[in-house]
Amino acid sequence: MEFQLDHAKDILRRTPATLTSLLQDVSDEWLFSNEGPDTWSPFDVLGHLIHGEETDWIPRAKMILEHGEQRAFVPFDRFAMFEKSKGKSLRELLATFEQLREESLQQLDELNLTPELLTKRGKHPELGVVTLSELLSTWVVHDLSHIGQIVRVMSKQYSESVGPWRAYLPILSR
Amino acid sequence: MEFQLDHAKDILRRTPATLTSLLQDVSDEWLFSNEGPDTWSPFDVLGHLIHGEETDWIPRAKMILEHGEQRAFVPFDRFAMFEKSKGKSLRELLATFEQLREESLQQLDELNLTPELLTKRGKHPELGVVTLSELLSTWVVHDLSHIGQIVRVMSKQYSESVGPWRAYLPILSR
Repeated sequence: MEFQLDHAKDILRRTPATLTSLLQDVSDEWLFSNEGPDTWSPFDVLGHLIHGEETDWIPRAKMILEHGEQRAFVPFDRFAMFEKSKGKSLRELLATFEQLREESLQQLDELNLTPELLTKRGKHPELGVVTLSELLSTWVVHDLSHIGQIVRVMSKQYSESVGPWRAYLPILSR
Repeated sequence: MEFQLDHAKDILRRTPATLTSLLQDVSDEWLFSNEGPDTWSPFDVLGHLIHGEETDWIPRAKMILEHGEQRAFVPFDRFAMFEKSKGKSLRELLATFEQLREESLQQLDELNLTPELLTKRGKHPELGVVTLSELLSTWVVHDLSHIGQIVRVMSKQYSESVGPWRAYLPILSR
């Protein structure tokens, strides 16, 4: 499937509602359990997605459009959310993410991206040369991937409870 | 996390809304693409979940309560949905799944399960002896696992489009 801006937006605009369906008012056992030391709970993942809206996707798109390969992206802090989410409720985080995503999509529209602009190149601090359409494709896959992480982390809380069915559930061994 | 009926229902009642958020009105490219020959599209997965409501979870729970280990479950047909979903729209399948899940949860309540009943044993045609709480835990993980499958299948449509970012996205290699 080739990247198309409309297809990408079709996924990006859904993520806040999907996370709300999955997580809002769920009990703390599901929300705060993780996969073991140095892994993330569903609550942590949501904070990570918020930090991405603030510092990653649209800022990097603008960086590509304004500076091309001349200036590398600011490295993304994968742990910022542990401090930033402290003391917040899940409902607050969901509302924040929903609002930030709406603003991001608004800004994306305002960039008036043409097929030509989508081929513009920027510089990733580790990966080197990347294009704007690769950045936007990654935004989509990043959303889907973290929904996948959330359901995997939740699944694993029942790794023992499923008994012999574990053999049929590869998600429990990932 | 130990199995608790309330925790399990907390997840089971969410799945229809989560699938609606993820899939309703999404373009056909996202909905009908799969991971290659003999793999399932998001549309196929939804049909599989419907077939589970009809033939797997509550019927097996009743079988355990009524027949214990005396009678093995009817084997689950993992391919029935290819025929049954034919000609149906996604909206029809989502509505069917939502209604069937509501009925399943209603029936689950009507079983008036006690901690003692949850330890009752049944017979799986391949796995042998299983308990009712293991069946219900598996129902939860099965839901979460298929949400994970759907987002993985959708992600893979952009395996090439993400360019060098692929290195950071393990979901694309599963």
